[in-house]
Amino acid sequence: MSSIYGEALRVSIFGQSHAPAIGVTIDGLPAGFSIDMEALAAFLRRRAPGRNPYSTPRKEDDLPEFLCGLVDNTTCGAPLTAIIRNTNTRSGDYAALRDVPRPAHADYAAQIKYGGFQDVAGGGHFSARLTAPLCIAGGICLQILEQQGIRVLAHIASVGEVEDTPFDPVNPVLPAGNPDFPVLDEAAGQAMQAVIALVRSEADSVGGTVECAVTGLPAGLGDPIFDGMENRLARILFGIPACKGLEFGSGFAGSRLRGSQNNDGFRMENGQVKTATNRHGGILGGITSGMPLLFRAAFKPTPSIGRAQQSVSLSQRAETELRIQGRHDPCIVPRAVPCVEAAAAIAVTDALLCAKKDHIFWEESR
Amino acid sequence: MSSIYGEALRVSIFGQSHAPAIGVTIDGLPAGFSIDMEALAAFLRRRAPGRNPYSTPRKEDDLPEFLCGLVDNTTCGAPLTAIIRNTNTRSGDYAALRDVPRPAHADYAAQIKYGGFQDVAGGGHFSARLTAPLCIAGGICLQILEQQGIRVLAHIASVGEVEDTPFDPVNPVLPAGNPDFPVLDEAAGQAMQAVIALVRSEADSVGGTVECAVTGLPAGLGDPIFDGMENRLARILFGIPACKGLEFGSGFAGSRLRGSQNNDGFRMENGQVKTATNRHGGILGGITSGMPLLFRAAFKPTPSIGRAQQSVSLSQRAETELRIQGRHDPCIVPRAVPCVEAAAAIAVTDALLCAKKDHIFWEESR
Amino acid sequence: MSSIYGEALRVSIFGQSHAPAIGVTIDGLPAGFSIDMEALAAFLRRRAPGRNPYSTPRKEDDLPEFLCGLVDNTTCGAPLTAIIRNTNTRSGDYAALRDVPRPAHADYAAQIKYGGFQDVAGGGHFSARLTAPLCIAGGICLQILEQQGIRVLAHIASVGEVEDTPFDPVNPVLPAGNPDFPVLDEAAGQAMQAVIALVRSEADSVGGTVECAVTGLPAGLGDPIFDGMENRLARILFGIPACKGLEFGSGFAGSRLRGSQNNDGFRMENGQVKTATNRHGGILGGITSGMPLLFRAAFKPTPSIGRAQQSVSLSQRAETELRIQGRHDPCIVPRAVPCVEAAAAIAVTDALLCAKKDHIFWEESR
Amino acid sequence: MSSIYGEALRVSIFGQSHAPAIGVTIDGLPAGFSIDMEALAAFLRRRAPGRNPYSTPRKEDDLPEFLCGLVDNTTCGAPLTAIIRNTNTRSGDYAALRDVPRPAHADYAAQIKYGGFQDVAGGGHFSARLTAPLCIAGGICLQILEQQGIRVLAHIASVGEVEDTPFDPVNPVLPAGNPDFPVLDEAAGQAMQAVIALVRSEADSVGGTVECAVTGLPAGLGDPIFDGMENRLARILFGIPACKGLEFGSGFAGSRLRGSQNNDGFRMENGQVKTATNRHGGILGGITSGMPLLFRAAFKPTPSIGRAQQSVSLSQRAETELRIQGRHDPCIVPRAVPCVEAAAAIAVTDALLCAKKDHIFWEESR
Repeated sequence: MSSIYGEALRVSIFGQSHAPAIGVTIDGLPAGFSIDMEALAAFLRRRAPGRNPYSTPRKEDDLPEFLCGLVDNTTCGAPLTAIIRNTNTRSGDYAALRDVPRPAHADYAAQIKYGGFQDVAGGGHFSARLTAPLCIAGGICLQILEQQGIRVLAHIASVGEVEDTPFDPVNPVLPAGNPDFPVLDEAAGQAMQAVIALVRSEADSVGGTVECAVTGLPAGLGDPIFDGMENRLARILFGIPACKGLEFGSGFAGSRLRGSQNNDGFRMENGQVKTATNRHGGILGGITSGMPLLFRAAFKPTPSIGRAQQSVSLSQRAETELRIQGRHDPCIVPRAVPCVEAAAAIAVTDALLCAKKDHIFWEESR
Repeated sequence: MSSIYGEALRVSIFGQSHAPAIGVTIDGLPAGFSIDMEALAAFLRRRAPGRNPYSTPRKEDDLPEFLCGLVDNTTCGAPLTAIIRNTNTRSGDYAALRDVPRPAHADYAAQIKYGGFQDVAGGGHFSARLTAPLCIAGGICLQILEQQGIRVLAHIASVGEVEDTPFDPVNPVLPAGNPDFPVLDEAAGQAMQAVIALVRSEADSVGGTVECAVTGLPAGLGDPIFDGMENRLARILFGIPACKGLEFGSGFAGSRLRGSQNNDGFRMENGQVKTATNRHGGILGGITSGMPLLFRAAFKPTPSIGRAQQSVSLSQRAETELRIQGRHDPCIVPRAVPCVEAAAAIAVTDALLCAKKDHIFWEESR
Repeated sequence: MSSIYGEALRVSIFGQSHAPAIGVTIDGLPAGFSIDMEALAAFLRRRAPGRNPYSTPRKEDDLPEFLCGLVDNTTCGAPLTAIIRNTNTRSGDYAALRDVPRPAHADYAAQIKYGGFQDVAGGGHFSARLTAPLCIAGGICLQILEQQGIRVLAHIASVGEVEDTPFDPVNPVLPAGNPDFPVLDEAAGQAMQAVIALVRSEADSVGGTVECAVTGLPAGLGDPIFDGMENRLARILFGIPACKGLEFGSGFAGSRLRGSQNNDGFRMENGQVKTATNRHGGILGGITSGMPLLFRAAFKPTPSIGRAQQSVSLSQRAETELRIQGRHDPCIVPRAVPCVEAAAAIAVTDALLCAKKDHIFWEESR
Repeated sequence: MSSIYGEALRVSIFGQSHAPAIGVTIDGLPAGFSIDMEALAAFLRRRAPGRNPYSTPRKEDDLPEFLCGLVDNTTCGAPLTAIIRNTNTRSGDYAALRDVPRPAHADYAAQIKYGGFQDVAGGGHFSARLTAPLCIAGGICLQILEQQGIRVLAHIASVGEVEDTPFDPVNPVLPAGNPDFPVLDEAAGQAMQAVIALVRSEADSVGGTVECAVTGLPAGLGDPIFDGMENRLARILFGIPACKGLEFGSGFAGSRLRGSQNNDGFRMENGQVKTATNRHGGILGGITSGMPLLFRAAFKPTPSIGRAQQSVSLSQRAETELRIQGRHDPCIVPRAVPCVEAAAAIAVTDALLCAKKDHIFWEESR
């Protein structure tokens, strides 16, 4: 595994679904930042399962315990570690899980990579439960960014074929509404929930997309060629289970356009350089332009479905039918929204810290 | 800048479009690999401009000079460095370029980040010319992979609204044809070239997509959570200028499907575990599954167009009109194909080297 | 802070002396290695304080709790995290500690770096207690190395002016004896203990050195220029508190010699290439030679002494006298021995994993 | 190989002694710094061989050619690459060199690591010639530091048994004198030169030590546990060929002292916190204290000597006698002085850039 992300801020995720605990260490947090623990708990609740009809009914009490890195809830410069105890720990016989890989899960690939020694209980380190520590780190970064006037907003952009209204690229705003199912168009939201209810009733699942905006960003963040903002965001977002696609600004749609349609002209706005449109998604040459940063991430349908599926017995080298037991999210997208926000917040905070050294000399000579 | 990519294999790109030279250093190449210099030159020619009607007529002689890392064209374990001299070096007055940023280019963002000290001539370090050193490194990796039975294939999947036939996900094959304009469907290719000719005649440009497949990969490559195959590929692919979107397997289309439609069942095929379909794009949980790895990258239209565009004078803090001189690729996509192959080859080779340590203990105890 | 070490194996140390816990995450451990928990506990006891007259009488129960990374005590490929709860957690008023920095401690430097937000209780993240998680990681690596036939030996080479017999450089052996005070010459050991008893009675402390040997190493480990064996070992060893010097092979003494005296000639020994002497300390050009790896680390006297010392009040900007309360190790060196072994084991294991990719091509073609 | 050093500033060394060129890329240099090319050339001359009786008479014209990273000699934010052409390029038959390893050289270890594919001509990537690109990077960093009021001073502290006067630890000053043979005590310098002349006449060599001081450093640099100032400096200094020992402040001598002797009390000096003595060498807990940073590095005798030495024929698996031809430095220490300065400057500059993010929040709230 390689579960450490970041450069100035290094976020290290650990844990398996059924191990004693999961958790995160953040190394590189500047000293002196006070965490609002209630706001963090509220953010983490948005990711927690079992709280509404469109997610798994499995209950988790995902309150983090902070082991170190804080003095009176304020960062002290030392690595910060927080853990969440697993209540669902290992028990019973997992031989069957190791033998018949679940389609679209990591089971088979992990079996080869780890030689059969991987933890199969509950998905091990591949479990979506590992997004909880990601959200702890991201929740802290969201507060850091907010203090700097930077906000991260995300909504469910689509579920199956049902699409929400996209953000206004120049002025993205998230309306008040159900924070567990954030959409811009409530009618679209209702239709999405109907789709989720339907696939659940059919022991099936459905995919979707999340659109995210970051506002209040200064121009000048990002370190091309390989640590530009797209690179940084992509590297962390593809760490969210089920994420299979990503586009910035006009993205795939922009690839169908002409330059005269896709280029965003510059203009002056209250003495500041802005673009009238924002098909570049706030990133030019890998560097923030000062316009809202915009991207959209695609999530595949939850792989765990109740229907019979074709698989193989690895021990017998023979085909077999698999029926996955238990209850699972019929659609991961609503709970992916805070994960996307968390990932974006981590990437942006890291880029912000890295940018502190860009101007060391010329700034002082001015 | 942060122009170093990779973990076991570290690829460091340097140079500006009009500096004396551009180049690349590869640190971590295993010793004892013999480079086929002719094959490398042939690969580099595919990226070079000026050789056909749909690219810029500017001529470049992009033959690399190897400064070190080789003994008799065989890697010696020391860092390998190759450079390409720029014939178009700095001259004249670039004050105008620094004052009026080109829309959709890095100019404005770089001006803020580097405090006005960035090299503006020819786009500096942001120039697409910097894909030449990427292709040197990638071309070497392609040969390394080929020796291991791994092949990287890519074609123009779309130009504007015109789409090529996609790869067969289970058995991707690239037909013989024009290597400078690789498509699966020659008729689609003709239509694409017509679109490119049209936008060129209108002093405009057009975007498109590239589809890439990697075949012959063993199962077990990739290091989740943050160095899984999607993370690794994304980090390098977004380093190619104009890349604004990326999807693996069924990607965005898969997000519209149900689990029962998108999951790929396992089956036995000649004693090997395979999937009947390949909507997962050869990656499960960030790890290769042994099926072909498949992804699609979106490229925005070339930002440089001959038409008048709206911009600002940074010195005067006033709006102005900009008309970009010179000749530019009306569509970057054909030349992006070898760049995508190169980037994929680098990411896969790095993952392959990193995987050499996965099984150290259990393998020996068997 | 930057408390992550390693490349293939990444060891992340976290915790403060009086925070709820301290701990370590190891990312990159190959799957399938079974940890001998009793042997690990025995190793950790060697570092634990309070068990004999020459260390601090403060008792600590340093048994690690493994949170993840294991299935039935066998590595599963996921990051391994172990923590140790602190029983001495924060309480009382630390304002005085923050105001008057202790000489030779990190207090003043940390005050400047962290702007007064650092955790001062018990030394915070700078406490020697943080060597406990280092020893957890190192203890696991020692077992991994032992399985590969590699052993790490260390002894107290000096305390104050009293010197132990050095290792035989060609065949280092550690005699049976008191594992808490390992020496080659028991009489020297007695004299060292007498010195420690004396300085303790005088409310003072004393420094010393540790000599370490690694035997059974294959030739070919280490990655020059900047990740050669000396670089790797130095980077981790200077992470042990109070370490202020390091020399490999003949080291400083070798700098007084002539080439004809210091060079080790090669010879054949049972069909293997060896050196008759070992002033190079088993490392040539940063790479292991197959001879025993040898180094010596210098530790300063424990900074905490009972005597009055000159310091300043940071708030009053005035000089003042400081008298440190509590009981401290009069000599850190005996407990530094297992820390040095642990650090060496981590560095060597990392180098071993990194070397797995050196020969990928030529080995297969043979 | 792993020839990249640094975190915010990444210095990548490439080249072999007899390859077409050697060079360096610096990624992460802040934009806007103007390099004084004459001062840099003067610094590089101090490392160049062939200019006086105590170094090798081999002439090298080590003027760097800057390929990129500069606009009008001012850093532009893009990676900076400089190369030096080798005039002594590969020719002739190196089979003998590959067969009989030179004692105390990397030959044998490299043969095993690189499977016989390593470049043996002139020592390949292990050649001391590779310190020339290190000095290019270091020479630039020295200028950067000087602009910030930080100076790096080094002198020959010993040659064989002859010792120079050490720096005043509280106020290190380097007297004017021969810049190619910097010493504090001219009489000691004369004695050292006599020793070098003697060993040369006897076809032998001799080792020595270099003492280095960095003055003007702010308190607060360095990132413990593993990127503290000792860790950072050690990692780069052990990259200088022949460096086998390193100590900070009182170092090995301090390990013989008592705490009451070695601790440096704090005092107020013109309103600033200082220590009256400086046995801590300007580093406390891995972080700079604001006092001069002091260290001493040990260099082994030049391995290449004219006398007959015992070696083996790898092909014949038999012992043989080796007589090294050519002329070599009888003592590497005088030319190691600028290399130590360069390495220290790189490490300090990197730490300085990394520290720019320490105080992001609390600084602004003051």
